[in-house]
Amino acid sequence: MFRAAVIGATGYAGADLVRILAGHPDVELSMITSRQYGGQPFSKVYPSMAGMVDMECAVYDAKEVCDAADIIFTALPHKVSMSIIPELIDNGKRVIDLSADFRFNDADLYESCYQPHMAKDLLEKSVYGLSEIYTEQIKNAQLIGNPGCYPTSVLLPLIPLLKEGLVDIKSIIADSKSGVSGAGRSTSLATHFCEVNESFKAYKVADHRHNPEMNMVLSREAGKDITITFVPHLVPMIRGMLTTSYSTLEKPVDEVSVRNILKKFYKGRYFVRICDEGTMPDTRNVRGANFCDIGVKIDETNNRMILVSAIDNVVKGAAGQSVQNMNIMLGLDEKAGLNNVPYPV
Amino acid sequence: MFRAAVIGATGYAGADLVRILAGHPDVELSMITSRQYGGQPFSKVYPSMAGMVDMECAVYDAKEVCDAADIIFTALPHKVSMSIIPELIDNGKRVIDLSADFRFNDADLYESCYQPHMAKDLLEKSVYGLSEIYTEQIKNAQLIGNPGCYPTSVLLPLIPLLKEGLVDIKSIIADSKSGVSGAGRSTSLATHFCEVNESFKAYKVADHRHNPEMNMVLSREAGKDITITFVPHLVPMIRGMLTTSYSTLEKPVDEVSVRNILKKFYKGRYFVRICDEGTMPDTRNVRGANFCDIGVKIDETNNRMILVSAIDNVVKGAAGQSVQNMNIMLGLDEKAGLNNVPYPV
Amino acid sequence: MFRAAVIGATGYAGADLVRILAGHPDVELSMITSRQYGGQPFSKVYPSMAGMVDMECAVYDAKEVCDAADIIFTALPHKVSMSIIPELIDNGKRVIDLSADFRFNDADLYESCYQPHMAKDLLEKSVYGLSEIYTEQIKNAQLIGNPGCYPTSVLLPLIPLLKEGLVDIKSIIADSKSGVSGAGRSTSLATHFCEVNESFKAYKVADHRHNPEMNMVLSREAGKDITITFVPHLVPMIRGMLTTSYSTLEKPVDEVSVRNILKKFYKGRYFVRICDEGTMPDTRNVRGANFCDIGVKIDETNNRMILVSAIDNVVKGAAGQSVQNMNIMLGLDEKAGLNNVPYPV
Amino acid sequence: MFRAAVIGATGYAGADLVRILAGHPDVELSMITSRQYGGQPFSKVYPSMAGMVDMECAVYDAKEVCDAADIIFTALPHKVSMSIIPELIDNGKRVIDLSADFRFNDADLYESCYQPHMAKDLLEKSVYGLSEIYTEQIKNAQLIGNPGCYPTSVLLPLIPLLKEGLVDIKSIIADSKSGVSGAGRSTSLATHFCEVNESFKAYKVADHRHNPEMNMVLSREAGKDITITFVPHLVPMIRGMLTTSYSTLEKPVDEVSVRNILKKFYKGRYFVRICDEGTMPDTRNVRGANFCDIGVKIDETNNRMILVSAIDNVVKGAAGQSVQNMNIMLGLDEKAGLNNVPYPV
Repeated sequence: MFRAAVIGATGYAGADLVRILAGHPDVELSMITSRQYGGQPFSKVYPSMAGMVDMECAVYDAKEVCDAADIIFTALPHKVSMSIIPELIDNGKRVIDLSADFRFNDADLYESCYQPHMAKDLLEKSVYGLSEIYTEQIKNAQLIGNPGCYPTSVLLPLIPLLKEGLVDIKSIIADSKSGVSGAGRSTSLATHFCEVNESFKAYKVADHRHNPEMNMVLSREAGKDITITFVPHLVPMIRGMLTTSYSTLEKPVDEVSVRNILKKFYKGRYFVRICDEGTMPDTRNVRGANFCDIGVKIDETNNRMILVSAIDNVVKGAAGQSVQNMNIMLGLDEKAGLNNVPYPV
Repeated sequence: MFRAAVIGATGYAGADLVRILAGHPDVELSMITSRQYGGQPFSKVYPSMAGMVDMECAVYDAKEVCDAADIIFTALPHKVSMSIIPELIDNGKRVIDLSADFRFNDADLYESCYQPHMAKDLLEKSVYGLSEIYTEQIKNAQLIGNPGCYPTSVLLPLIPLLKEGLVDIKSIIADSKSGVSGAGRSTSLATHFCEVNESFKAYKVADHRHNPEMNMVLSREAGKDITITFVPHLVPMIRGMLTTSYSTLEKPVDEVSVRNILKKFYKGRYFVRICDEGTMPDTRNVRGANFCDIGVKIDETNNRMILVSAIDNVVKGAAGQSVQNMNIMLGLDEKAGLNNVPYPV
Repeated sequence: MFRAAVIGATGYAGADLVRILAGHPDVELSMITSRQYGGQPFSKVYPSMAGMVDMECAVYDAKEVCDAADIIFTALPHKVSMSIIPELIDNGKRVIDLSADFRFNDADLYESCYQPHMAKDLLEKSVYGLSEIYTEQIKNAQLIGNPGCYPTSVLLPLIPLLKEGLVDIKSIIADSKSGVSGAGRSTSLATHFCEVNESFKAYKVADHRHNPEMNMVLSREAGKDITITFVPHLVPMIRGMLTTSYSTLEKPVDEVSVRNILKKFYKGRYFVRICDEGTMPDTRNVRGANFCDIGVKIDETNNRMILVSAIDNVVKGAAGQSVQNMNIMLGLDEKAGLNNVPYPV
Repeated sequence: MFRAAVIGATGYAGADLVRILAGHPDVELSMITSRQYGGQPFSKVYPSMAGMVDMECAVYDAKEVCDAADIIFTALPHKVSMSIIPELIDNGKRVIDLSADFRFNDADLYESCYQPHMAKDLLEKSVYGLSEIYTEQIKNAQLIGNPGCYPTSVLLPLIPLLKEGLVDIKSIIADSKSGVSGAGRSTSLATHFCEVNESFKAYKVADHRHNPEMNMVLSREAGKDITITFVPHLVPMIRGMLTTSYSTLEKPVDEVSVRNILKKFYKGRYFVRICDEGTMPDTRNVRGANFCDIGVKIDETNNRMILVSAIDNVVKGAAGQSVQNMNIMLGLDEKAGLNNVPYPV
């Protein structure tokens, strides 16, 4: 049994990590910490887990965490992560960070959309944890920058088709829609039930910090500079994210071929499911699961490819993918702890 | 007082027409009909209106309707509308049809996406009821083809900018999101609460029958053939529609200029509101109202214009706009019956 | 035209007051104030009202309010109300207070569940604004303590039957269910979308501050001490409140008779609707309206009467009833400003 | 490995059975049938399970089912169940029926609220599958009548206190609230998203067919005739059920004592959780899980006990409890297949 710690266990991503790790067959959840709920039992914060996860939330202490765990998940706000991770790395621990702090290899890019970076020397070391794309690098990584939820949903369908040279790289538009849990557990008017329910809106239009993250990875994979147009929207539901992307085709191709390219690329990768002809993803189908469902439509009249992808923003978009990365890092079955059968409704 | 009849009063669009007309200062709701609820009081079908609209739903009879009303709204399924409207027109009545049957001036186009047309000679006569765009033609029309909800939300922001020559006509993409009431009151698995709530999906991807309707109007306004890519999505909320459209700019232009073009174009038109810099539409802000809110963002990096529009699909997207058209036809204040103050939540 | 001011215009009750008064035919909304948004246009806080209510939120100043208005609504938190109302009363203004501060005539009772009272001398003067019950007293009142939402839904069905001697006064139980807007616009984990949606719970079980308010009014009407068991619950919806009350019958009576007692009692009172046999209230039917719908069922086996009542907690439960009270005070039509036709969906 | 079949696998209870059994460590899901989807892969009906449960839905054939399975779950409508179960029993199979057909030992009682019974001789044999109460009888049962969802939520908190003689048996009232999945997957206006969302109502007030079921079990446990008042309500959420019950105390008792009685009674029973002082159940905490959470409050003023219980109506209220019963019947760990860690949100 490996021992895992979750730092920041009471936010939504952290709590879902606790859920997954508590049921993981090969890992023992050995420590959890919380700034806000230090000293309280986890099941007092999340009574759903009473009788299952009653361990106490510790106050963070680097030494204690290093003593208690082999692998450490940091589910903290940006900036807080990079303030504690160097010490963990120095102690030889493997770290999977769910914030944006170690997603960028280029400190300037990070600083242009976040803040001054406090651990630049680690950026080179860190691996971008998009599990299906960077599997080999993840295996040996000591530090993972776990991808943002939006980038995960945008990148997985696009990368194989970009690599195939099918996509006009100047034409890419991603129109994403996220459930409210993506905004986290902090309270704000923006997440007040009465302001969100029976409401749909765009926000941070072409101005979201996940946009540079997508550009970076797409450019790396295509070997050319790519900047896409990205618009996120807020859906009145708890979990789920759907991205509809539009791009002009570089050469004529039919839907069957596109589907085949995707199927071939993701062959053997359990968590990516390509929808059959005539069916399209629905966030309902990935709710609570680590899947990314992908659908394809060619708009022939306009020579345009439409890709639709659905993930659970808290699972494949955060906690689930981070456990998938841990599984890869530890040489476990990629699915371990992640193969709960999804709910029909 | 003008006398108005609603044919098909118990579907969602019909019932919202009843709501609006029952409160209209210059119009008397003189007859309502329902195939399903003929002989029953309207307030038995919609108990919310008990004490307000207790009149009986009649079974449709052309003569009785013509005797009872000066202006007739038909809120019927496609095909049913065109089977009864010719007789009403022959009797000299003015008709506003909320189905697709009289939206197209070209029978072939209609038939390519619906069915054989049974009243082709009326197509030339009918006016497309996009109130702010075809005001002059509406004034004198005897027959209005009231626009679809999706086309209303797509066309209002785009038309002024197309006319200004700002938009690369090959580049237009409209990504729309609709509340569930757009699917009507008929029961189906697709509108079952448990299948819709906590769910988000795309449907009829690049294959929706409102797409040719948009193409037709955009082409007419631009004087050039335009075919856009259109993808509708379903949002777990009752009312509301938001469209995010993407198009490449033909010439450099900043947000302020775009906003000014829109403000100038819609000057004096109460129901179109252009959002100030830094704010964007939210369907919440138009819930239950006849407004179309429009927001603008220029993605300079990609030379792309992003337009966001929000309407209530049942009001500006159906019943409300049809009453607005009636007001224009009858020489009334455009706002009459439509100026209820929206709910804050 | 009378001139009305709303103090605390940007909370949910205050904003709904603004909505109603802005559409009121006999009243001019002459001033609105907000602690949080002083100096900002109301439509910036509630963009739904852009073009309709663009007046600025003033910072509260007693003299300016008194100069601007004949009648003043205070939609403020408990305690804040009683700190400003005495000055308004001294200036001869008529005041309708939506907080709990002036609902009790007995300071001790108030203090037992709220805090020390700062304007005890006004308690005798204040009238409990349950419009249909205290109409005569309201007409001449200078100060109204507008009822809580829960008490409104509990009291209206019970009072006529209590007065008829039908109810065993020791047996009354009220099980109430409220939409989230009842918790107000302040942010908290309890109103976070992800904590509320897909969730149902009881709270403050037999320990809610509206309980003594109900006891007081029921006792007054029955002429005997009554204490009821009251349990509120939270429903994942924005607006709406449903109360199911249970009481043992003092003497055998059938449903028709109970319904007739209610119909007779509320004869001529537009806003109370008694449901026909076989139908029961649904909050949907009163959404956005000032109605209180009441249904009756006799459980003969257990000699028990079940009353179900539905209101919109923000309208009949707060802003709407306060305007109804204003109409009564000013000798206007009780329905003025409150007869918007409800939405079918 | 035991082999299990699910008859009627595509309704909500059946599908949740498939979910649970597909992840069960000691049972192989060897056959599923569906009238509506015979011949189609299960994952076509529930795409969430693609890659996990792709087996085909068979058309029901008694012989094939008996050949394929050791234990058979029937998740069928009332009446259909009793038309096929006798043949399965004759073939020596153990059957767990989720309909009402075998919940009653008294045919007359069944017939008074359902229809003529077609397999009366089996009624004596059948065991009421309230897992925590009838554990011993379940162990050896060949036929289980799995409890209704409402009875499960009403009975579990009440039975221990009834047995203790604490409750005035003439005073019991159960006010229950259910999510929409309780109405099943069939389409109807009553489950249309636009009719349910933002809505709350009572239905079948004191007239629900689960009422006699509760009366029967309570009477059996108390050894006296008990008829309770039962009112169900519909909550705009998918899963979840909360019951608030009210009863007069036969003798003075404090909350701590009541809680201790419950804790003692359910000692060692994993799926019943008694809430600590000051906390109350929330359906959110049992969503997707087989728990029944119970909270207690004594209203001393009225000498009344308030019990609040929360279950997931599809899990503990149907599929989950039926698997729990199977585990008991087969001598497996009661928790097997049912110990998935619940989602934090």
